[in-house]
Amino acid sequence: MLPKREDCLMQFFNGMEESSVQAPQPATRLDLRRILQARQCVSREFLNSPAFDCITLGDLLGCEIVIKLETANPIGCFKGRGTEVVMSRLARTQSLKVVVCASAGNLGLALAYSGRRHGVNVTVVASASANATKIDRIRKLGAAVEQVAGDFEAARERAREIADNNNVFLVEDSDNLDTCEGAGTIGLELLEGGERIDAVLLALGGGALATGVGHVFKTLSPATEVVCVQPKGAPAMALSWRARSIVNTEHTDTIADGVAGRFPSPAVLADLLANADHIPVVDEDSIVTGMRMLYRTASLVVEPSAALGVAAILEDPLRYRGKRVAMVICGSNVQSEQFSAWMQE
Amino acid sequence: MLPKREDCLMQFFNGMEESSVQAPQPATRLDLRRILQARQCVSREFLNSPAFDCITLGDLLGCEIVIKLETANPIGCFKGRGTEVVMSRLARTQSLKVVVCASAGNLGLALAYSGRRHGVNVTVVASASANATKIDRIRKLGAAVEQVAGDFEAARERAREIADNNNVFLVEDSDNLDTCEGAGTIGLELLEGGERIDAVLLALGGGALATGVGHVFKTLSPATEVVCVQPKGAPAMALSWRARSIVNTEHTDTIADGVAGRFPSPAVLADLLANADHIPVVDEDSIVTGMRMLYRTASLVVEPSAALGVAAILEDPLRYRGKRVAMVICGSNVQSEQFSAWMQE
Repeated sequence: MLPKREDCLMQFFNGMEESSVQAPQPATRLDLRRILQARQCVSREFLNSPAFDCITLGDLLGCEIVIKLETANPIGCFKGRGTEVVMSRLARTQSLKVVVCASAGNLGLALAYSGRRHGVNVTVVASASANATKIDRIRKLGAAVEQVAGDFEAARERAREIADNNNVFLVEDSDNLDTCEGAGTIGLELLEGGERIDAVLLALGGGALATGVGHVFKTLSPATEVVCVQPKGAPAMALSWRARSIVNTEHTDTIADGVAGRFPSPAVLADLLANADHIPVVDEDSIVTGMRMLYRTASLVVEPSAALGVAAILEDPLRYRGKRVAMVICGSNVQSEQFSAWMQE
Repeated sequence: MLPKREDCLMQFFNGMEESSVQAPQPATRLDLRRILQARQCVSREFLNSPAFDCITLGDLLGCEIVIKLETANPIGCFKGRGTEVVMSRLARTQSLKVVVCASAGNLGLALAYSGRRHGVNVTVVASASANATKIDRIRKLGAAVEQVAGDFEAARERAREIADNNNVFLVEDSDNLDTCEGAGTIGLELLEGGERIDAVLLALGGGALATGVGHVFKTLSPATEVVCVQPKGAPAMALSWRARSIVNTEHTDTIADGVAGRFPSPAVLADLLANADHIPVVDEDSIVTGMRMLYRTASLVVEPSAALGVAAILEDPLRYRGKRVAMVICGSNVQSEQFSAWMQE
């Protein structure tokens, strides 16, 4: 009486244990076996997110589109996968019951949520200009919020200071391998159906999503092109990937607040060099058009970072023509008035 | 290496086979064993839809809200569960490879989708005033569409005529038990987590969703209040339930096109009398406010029928205060211009 989906999952993961984890993996910090273990730490409200064909959007873009929807959960974004892994492993290895992170919003939301589940006190440091909707929701989940002048990098500095001075565990998104491995479980789910995927489009900020999902594809489905997309207004990791060494930028200027960093992590860049095939940067106009297309064809409200994949196809349609393209819709935490305004322009 | 969710599902369904299907069931057309079998006919893109707590919405409404999201699939509504059951059983019992239905849109979409999957020709008869977005999407899925003057009841009559004259299998939503049993699988998933649910809120149109999910709750969780909601502008089934006999209405006047019927089915009414605890009717203003709240607090675009549950809480908040309330978000097929206009009023 087992439903089909579970049969399929069982076969898939049993098969993986026996053979696929022996498959050659790119030499990075990431490891398929650890990602499979991470999957066991992720709570059910984040696992098995919907994956579905969006025919109307595919017709407009000239390719087949598979949407992997990471917004239908209590925090409206994918980062709960990573923070559940962080908290589970922390409980096994540390006696600390206090964590801090810097966040543009979504990591903070996820950490606040997981902290509440696991009985861990969470402090989130954010820029004074961070998305107000996200900050409100973080407070509602019971985390302390400290806002600092300056951008996301100022928040990162302050979070490190709190960690150093108070013996508090610091969760640095993407640098912390758990956040990458948690995100990587999305890749396992995209592949579990066994259908061909020619390209997977991932928002690129700090790099947890890109390296986690990228590693799973490069290991289990190396023919899939791993495309990581940044806004032109926050291109530090894209520039670093092209230069094969860290390039910092002076400032960021993008509506995609979820991916707007200036100081890429060397460890994450090394992983990304092994796991990404292509890293385009896109215009703000394309991001807004992408959000509109997702709204009009799929009734989806997404934050700008989640429209980077559509933007990449709009700016380079021939690359994807006729292909089967999966895109991870990574977040929906956007202020509704702002979203409505973007939809009307 | 089995993920938690699958462990949980296995235990749940194994346990069910052994004991719960022996539990006393309300005497209706519905049967828990058949709903468990139906689950095996439903394809994976419809099964295991997200269920998640929406804290922000719950705070506004004064209760805990669990959202069961039936829109993150290729057709943006729950009806694929039922049409997959229809097609699977049809393949076993009939040689016909042609079906017809009348539809305000969502059943047509679902039948077109399942027809394409199973190699069955589908004709959808709709009112000339049916939602254009839905009609476009039905055509894109390869079904023939016939639009007729008059409302949904005129379409139903024409569909019956086509079936009678051409030896075509007629799928009458809700009257066809497969559509109810398919919808009932949503109830199984809501209960699989084992968490308490004090009330479940269901949109009530023809009655497939209400009787299917209602039957599962009345059998496995009889303490849960099954609340089925209709618009005041299309109250035929609500009036019939109160009168305990069929009440037809002259016309409908509601934005909730997905639930706007005038001639309830006697068979479905009999099921509903056994499985529903409460059937409120709500104002159009409350439906629009409900849609706005889902948009602003949960970044969800829903069609009016899917906001009936929020509308019911808004009109009778004390009934739900402090309770844990599940609501099925049954569809998102709304014209984006219209939706944007509703959000701004």
